Amino acid sequence: MSEFDTVIKGGIVVTPRDQFRADIGIMGESIVAIGADLTGARTIDASGLLVMPGGVDSHCHIEQLRPDGTADEESFISASMSAFAGGTTSVITFASQFKGRPIGPSLIEYQARAASSMLDYSFHQIITDPTDDVIATEIPALVAAGIRSLKVFLTYDPLHVDDRGFLRILAAARRAGALVTVHCENYAAIGWMTEALLAAGHVAPKYHAWSRPVVVEREATYRAIALAELVDQPIQIFHVSCSEVAEEIARAQARGVKVWAETCPQYLTLTENDMDRPGFDGAKFMCSPAPRDAHAAAGLWAQIKSGTIGVISSDHSGYRIEGPRGKRSAGSDANFRDIPNGLPGLGARLALLFSEGVGGGRISASEFVALTAFNPAELFGLAHKGRLAPGADADIVLWDPAKQVTLRNEMMQHAIDYTPYEGKIVTGFPVLTMRRGEVVMRDGVVQAKPGTGRFMARGPYDYIKPAGHLAHGFDASLHA
Amino acid sequence: MSEFDTVIKGGIVVTPRDQFRADIGIMGESIVAIGADLTGARTIDASGLLVMPGGVDSHCHIEQLRPDGTADEESFISASMSAFAGGTTSVITFASQFKGRPIGPSLIEYQARAASSMLDYSFHQIITDPTDDVIATEIPALVAAGIRSLKVFLTYDPLHVDDRGFLRILAAARRAGALVTVHCENYAAIGWMTEALLAAGHVAPKYHAWSRPVVVEREATYRAIALAELVDQPIQIFHVSCSEVAEEIARAQARGVKVWAETCPQYLTLTENDMDRPGFDGAKFMCSPAPRDAHAAAGLWAQIKSGTIGVISSDHSGYRIEGPRGKRSAGSDANFRDIPNGLPGLGARLALLFSEGVGGGRISASEFVALTAFNPAELFGLAHKGRLAPGADADIVLWDPAKQVTLRNEMMQHAIDYTPYEGKIVTGFPVLTMRRGEVVMRDGVVQAKPGTGRFMARGPYDYIKPAGHLAHGFDASLHA
Amino acid sequence: MSEFDTVIKGGIVVTPRDQFRADIGIMGESIVAIGADLTGARTIDASGLLVMPGGVDSHCHIEQLRPDGTADEESFISASMSAFAGGTTSVITFASQFKGRPIGPSLIEYQARAASSMLDYSFHQIITDPTDDVIATEIPALVAAGIRSLKVFLTYDPLHVDDRGFLRILAAARRAGALVTVHCENYAAIGWMTEALLAAGHVAPKYHAWSRPVVVEREATYRAIALAELVDQPIQIFHVSCSEVAEEIARAQARGVKVWAETCPQYLTLTENDMDRPGFDGAKFMCSPAPRDAHAAAGLWAQIKSGTIGVISSDHSGYRIEGPRGKRSAGSDANFRDIPNGLPGLGARLALLFSEGVGGGRISASEFVALTAFNPAELFGLAHKGRLAPGADADIVLWDPAKQVTLRNEMMQHAIDYTPYEGKIVTGFPVLTMRRGEVVMRDGVVQAKPGTGRFMARGPYDYIKPAGHLAHGFDASLHA
Amino acid sequence: MSEFDTVIKGGIVVTPRDQFRADIGIMGESIVAIGADLTGARTIDASGLLVMPGGVDSHCHIEQLRPDGTADEESFISASMSAFAGGTTSVITFASQFKGRPIGPSLIEYQARAASSMLDYSFHQIITDPTDDVIATEIPALVAAGIRSLKVFLTYDPLHVDDRGFLRILAAARRAGALVTVHCENYAAIGWMTEALLAAGHVAPKYHAWSRPVVVEREATYRAIALAELVDQPIQIFHVSCSEVAEEIARAQARGVKVWAETCPQYLTLTENDMDRPGFDGAKFMCSPAPRDAHAAAGLWAQIKSGTIGVISSDHSGYRIEGPRGKRSAGSDANFRDIPNGLPGLGARLALLFSEGVGGGRISASEFVALTAFNPAELFGLAHKGRLAPGADADIVLWDPAKQVTLRNEMMQHAIDYTPYEGKIVTGFPVLTMRRGEVVMRDGVVQAKPGTGRFMARGPYDYIKPAGHLAHGFDASLHA
Repeated sequence: MSEFDTVIKGGIVVTPRDQFRADIGIMGESIVAIGADLTGARTIDASGLLVMPGGVDSHCHIEQLRPDGTADEESFISASMSAFAGGTTSVITFASQFKGRPIGPSLIEYQARAASSMLDYSFHQIITDPTDDVIATEIPALVAAGIRSLKVFLTYDPLHVDDRGFLRILAAARRAGALVTVHCENYAAIGWMTEALLAAGHVAPKYHAWSRPVVVEREATYRAIALAELVDQPIQIFHVSCSEVAEEIARAQARGVKVWAETCPQYLTLTENDMDRPGFDGAKFMCSPAPRDAHAAAGLWAQIKSGTIGVISSDHSGYRIEGPRGKRSAGSDANFRDIPNGLPGLGARLALLFSEGVGGGRISASEFVALTAFNPAELFGLAHKGRLAPGADADIVLWDPAKQVTLRNEMMQHAIDYTPYEGKIVTGFPVLTMRRGEVVMRDGVVQAKPGTGRFMARGPYDYIKPAGHLAHGFDASLHA
Repeated sequence: MSEFDTVIKGGIVVTPRDQFRADIGIMGESIVAIGADLTGARTIDASGLLVMPGGVDSHCHIEQLRPDGTADEESFISASMSAFAGGTTSVITFASQFKGRPIGPSLIEYQARAASSMLDYSFHQIITDPTDDVIATEIPALVAAGIRSLKVFLTYDPLHVDDRGFLRILAAARRAGALVTVHCENYAAIGWMTEALLAAGHVAPKYHAWSRPVVVEREATYRAIALAELVDQPIQIFHVSCSEVAEEIARAQARGVKVWAETCPQYLTLTENDMDRPGFDGAKFMCSPAPRDAHAAAGLWAQIKSGTIGVISSDHSGYRIEGPRGKRSAGSDANFRDIPNGLPGLGARLALLFSEGVGGGRISASEFVALTAFNPAELFGLAHKGRLAPGADADIVLWDPAKQVTLRNEMMQHAIDYTPYEGKIVTGFPVLTMRRGEVVMRDGVVQAKPGTGRFMARGPYDYIKPAGHLAHGFDASLHA
Repeated sequence: MSEFDTVIKGGIVVTPRDQFRADIGIMGESIVAIGADLTGARTIDASGLLVMPGGVDSHCHIEQLRPDGTADEESFISASMSAFAGGTTSVITFASQFKGRPIGPSLIEYQARAASSMLDYSFHQIITDPTDDVIATEIPALVAAGIRSLKVFLTYDPLHVDDRGFLRILAAARRAGALVTVHCENYAAIGWMTEALLAAGHVAPKYHAWSRPVVVEREATYRAIALAELVDQPIQIFHVSCSEVAEEIARAQARGVKVWAETCPQYLTLTENDMDRPGFDGAKFMCSPAPRDAHAAAGLWAQIKSGTIGVISSDHSGYRIEGPRGKRSAGSDANFRDIPNGLPGLGARLALLFSEGVGGGRISASEFVALTAFNPAELFGLAHKGRLAPGADADIVLWDPAKQVTLRNEMMQHAIDYTPYEGKIVTGFPVLTMRRGEVVMRDGVVQAKPGTGRFMARGPYDYIKPAGHLAHGFDASLHA
Repeated sequence: MSEFDTVIKGGIVVTPRDQFRADIGIMGESIVAIGADLTGARTIDASGLLVMPGGVDSHCHIEQLRPDGTADEESFISASMSAFAGGTTSVITFASQFKGRPIGPSLIEYQARAASSMLDYSFHQIITDPTDDVIATEIPALVAAGIRSLKVFLTYDPLHVDDRGFLRILAAARRAGALVTVHCENYAAIGWMTEALLAAGHVAPKYHAWSRPVVVEREATYRAIALAELVDQPIQIFHVSCSEVAEEIARAQARGVKVWAETCPQYLTLTENDMDRPGFDGAKFMCSPAPRDAHAAAGLWAQIKSGTIGVISSDHSGYRIEGPRGKRSAGSDANFRDIPNGLPGLGARLALLFSEGVGGGRISASEFVALTAFNPAELFGLAHKGRLAPGADADIVLWDPAKQVTLRNEMMQHAIDYTPYEGKIVTGFPVLTMRRGEVVMRDGVVQAKPGTGRFMARGPYDYIKPAGHLAHGFDASLHA
């Protein structure tokens, strides 16, 4: 009936709770109408396709700086290509603080590097050194600059923060109105187990999993929630690996604690046995927490279905196998401790999840949209992302639910020389990705100009306001 | 940008998972677009208002026939007025089978009576006598006629069905593709308790609650679920009165049983103490299950929030106080057993729930829409109802979230001479109701022609397909 | 140091919570001392043996009358031999009411038949027809006569009682101070499933298990508890077959309901696959509830360990294979419905449990004593039984914990022509049984005179006094 | 019938699972017989009294050394008097390591000081500094010397051990066969809260409770269990203050983890409101964990009843109010942080628990004996204590269950100048205490010679052997 710049025609529009046949009318960068029989200067045929919001990947490491000034090989450009190829249109990546240094300068460098992005992006600020200045000045400044989420590692040398530091960060976040995300594994336990394993001569990649069994993640998750309860500060638990961990989160949610949870495709599709593949291949599957046993996926799906886990991100953390900083850089028979851990997954996330989830009858297409786009956008305050509604950015993926694809590393279009999902057959694949009204991928071909991505400043948001459960009514964050 | 018959302009559109500012474009009876800056032949200003799907009340008794051929005083016309006044645009009411008689003829009479409705309507067919003919012939015929839900009473003379009858109905529903709804209270226990109470001289209305304590409802709920599990047939539990009952449902849901739950505003706002009001006033609050104690509401809200309970209906079941079949017809000091029980709530449902729920900070406006419109429409297969999306019926309510109203019986516009909520102050109220594109209520004034309501035939639907958990893989329904 | 009639010397005395080396001094029929270095006219050497209270089997069917006046082939004499051979010294068996008849006369006949017993015995009175006279007169008379426990079947033709009847019995028991034991399976569901199975041509013994899956037992258990809660009357759930059922009991116990639970060796050692053995052999393993799958035993052991299940009885219910009323009497290819179900277990109970439990490291010897002797004696008010303490009856079994035995039917010394445990190897076996100071079994040879057993009248007891949880404080039993 | 040195005549003997009328015959220091009509050179009349094993208090601080070489004012002599007055006959107290120093020399001093004891005693060795030498040499030496239990503080300056230290201690205990007991509160959280409270000007005693809310104890309990699971090492959680903490323990127990729990009378009888009494009186009730709210006791009783909590000790930790190291030594308006915390309870433990527990209908007398004597003796390997059986030490308390007493500090006979239970009326009181055959208290008058107490070396014991749950089957303790 009307004239739009672009109309996506004849598809099934999928919202986080519903689906219906409708056209989408786009003007400039935005969706302006969802309706029947729309007409536009340009028409994109979506018959037989699902029309979904572009994926929002709220957990991926891109061009992350190292203390020596170099950065991860996965650049904003390669990451953008991989994301678009896979149907993802916006990401939240990480800015890292280095111990002993302030946040400000490195954040400036991150912003500069991100200027080349084609993806829209925001940052979680990693806090590794909660000095008085960081607490009193830099965290409020971050929030004022639209970076309203912090990341804390409870393990990892040299990133990890102890309980006192974590409490200080939680209190600063509460005062400033930021959300805190947490990597939960027990630092001391992993170190102690690692030493014991190496002392026993257990050095192969599979012992990475032995060094950090479920109980180590479960403990740290419980502790993170407990300390957040003490401060009454909302948190999101990153990369929940199994239902035992999710169960602790579900218990906290049931008593009204504002704790959210995320998992990743690797925990739904890989197991620790993958780390026991012959030769050096096991190293390709090393990440933290480690993939669990064959029962873990079923448990996670149940927790996804029940709502305990609301976000599925990639935790894309790409290390090449070969090359000066690659997984093999310490040798083909390096101790597992010396092999960088992390998996690439930005490009494969949506296809894996759709195939296992929707194709496998475990979730509906609406739940897929909620988990991969709507929920992370809502939780992290990306008001214009993750939704198909008038006023939202025209970030859209057209998805062929019947297309069968054998995953190959070249499809990932990332800077990494392997994918852990090589050869896996998936059903359902993105055929067109649109970012703010512009078609940036069609049939696997990514076309976008570096620098067209935009920083997503996040304004004040209500969604995470504190839960209101303070023991004795005493708000320690006001005094600590 | 375009020309619609009607545009609802400038409101906040509320979907079951999101809300955003948008206009709604309507052509004829349908929504055709949701977008920015729509123009139409007629414009309805919705600034400052919430634009929500018209309420779907999936549980209300209207003009229900009695064995003697008379019917409840709440007619389809008075019920339509009450519903429109309160923001509800479609209902599922009940057709009743009488013991010893077939379903067919009475269903024909229900259809005839419903012809006067202004509301769109469907029926749950009450089965009281699962004869071989009902099982083999009439239930499949009902489903073929678009009546895909059955109702079973596990208590109430003379309606109740015993375990064997219930199993036969479940099996027939499974074969035919119908959902079964259940009133869960233990028949024998209520009868036994009632006799004991009367023998003890406990006759006042408040003893109605004593005659059917929580355990009586909890037991029957557990049993209904167990028998449904045996048959692998989906069910909805009607009018859950407290969290103890909901907990049994949550446990079944967690193991994958297809059991859904409903509660009603009376269980969120009234208590058994209301039945102890002076004089005959207690009788106004008698319904089954009985309202519980002061803690029940908090428990129910938690179960609503967690998703255990997904539908809030009215269980409108109106009896006048005065008149030949009124609550007082057996005298002002009648035994509680002789007082008809049931409450009117069709008109008050949405306002009560919005005020307590959204106003009280317990649920979001999106959750309100899900509970009162989207979820019942989805569960019961009303494809065009309960949603604001292109292609859906233009059943819309404009809601002023700030309007404060003192509830009075005359606002209810029903045929009943009281409301249990007389004098209650609510915040948030409907200011305009539209049914299939036609404004049927504006500022409390209902305007609609009798007979404009439409029977909603429900086609085959996927949502309730059996859960797939059969012990030993044996499908008894194929042989029973 | 002193002169006793008999001293059991040098064994390890096992109490329900402790074990220690001590001698036991016996005068006449009673234990009078537990001490070091006792001397007696007769000395029984117990070096290397465990000295435990004689087994109390609180659930076994002996010489049970049939409506036609005949009785089960397992007579009091054969049952006594079997019990003594297996280390059991007292039993509670059943007196049965027949529908349409009073209790009194049949109880007189039971007492007459029991006069031949060598075992000490009491009765649970089965109530099948709770007429006004039974409720008002006969139940109080039973209690006055020392028969303080009733048995209700919620399933089985023609024994089963409906919910109303069960409520009446519970109330009568509350008024009279009796405990109620319950066979929990859903009558209607079993009947309906059985018909469906037979209609599908599923007739072999294994379909007995299909006709009554776990959910059927779980439902009836929940219902029995709920109705007992309503009346505030303590109950014991008979023969819990799996942890799903036990979990419902544990939940009730946790909220303070007085509900106890029993299981039997068949649920710890057999599975439904045993009913699928070739030929007619499956019939040997038919009992109700049916043995479950291979996981059930582990779940039951956990519930035994946690205390949910406190008694392990035999549910001895012997039917011969051959003979006029035997399992094969309806033919070798009879429908499962026509094969009498029930297993003999009186003689094997203790050896099976000791071997699987104590030998298997699942329970301690003290827990064995608690489960098989002390707890049933305490629960059912057998003040002088199940304990090794001054003043108790000298009912003692000497147990060789290391003795390995291959079970054979002839060891059972019962009237039944098979044991379901034929060929099973157990570790740990009774070598001497003493009943009230008299050695009645030594190395498998039973020596006791018919008629030396004694009726155990049970006096008023405190242990089961009502829980004190009445909704609204209303005690319906006073008026019903 | 025989001649004993002493016979306790005519009482009700209470064992942890039974009670019965019997006499107790004693020769020298030991019980040699339990029987009817015993005769002795000396007869103690116990008619109307309960005869129970002398209390075993497995958690009390006596004459504990401070880093400056002085010791707590509660000496072994005063503690013995208090214990005997209250019915307790053996204790496990603490030997403390000081950071930077070896264990050996201080243990020698403890042994020297304990030489004056009239009570039988053992030690838990507190480890504060798990150096390589402590781990490799001193812990095995302790176990060889009969000190088979270690104590770890997860909070308290300067005692607390971090996660790595705790893991090392757990592994050393596993290798050596010792049990580890744990004080569970989160060190960082308490410190952070305390600073915030003081910064807010909240200095009064009641803020001690605010500084360590339930979540702080719950977290550390969960963590202690998790780390113990990782190592597969049994632990006992000290002084559980409320059911929320106990619930975490119950969950671990249900999955087979060997974790035991203790609570103390202060958590059953006091609340945090007691710390808000006027003037300096609140300081009398300061202990850690802090007493909780008015609901806590009911929750704890439920967890005691269900068996989650199996030991009730005193955590006697006496500080005088007045005097150079007393609670008031920093002034009457000292910051709560500067007031020594700990309560005296050695003398009052049994009377409080009997009155609240047995008198209150919450536990039986047998459960009282289990909780206060049998269970701690069994758990900690005191083979001859806590039981009334031939061969056990004749440690006996005669208890008048009907005696009503108003508690006064002078009855406590300890070195502390107050009791937190001043003026409390209890029903049930010890009237005679016997330690190894010697009457050491009669009607409140203690008579015993210093130095008659004996060190209880604890031999190898089975009860705590590791649970056998190691992730990946890897026993890190063998390599760490």
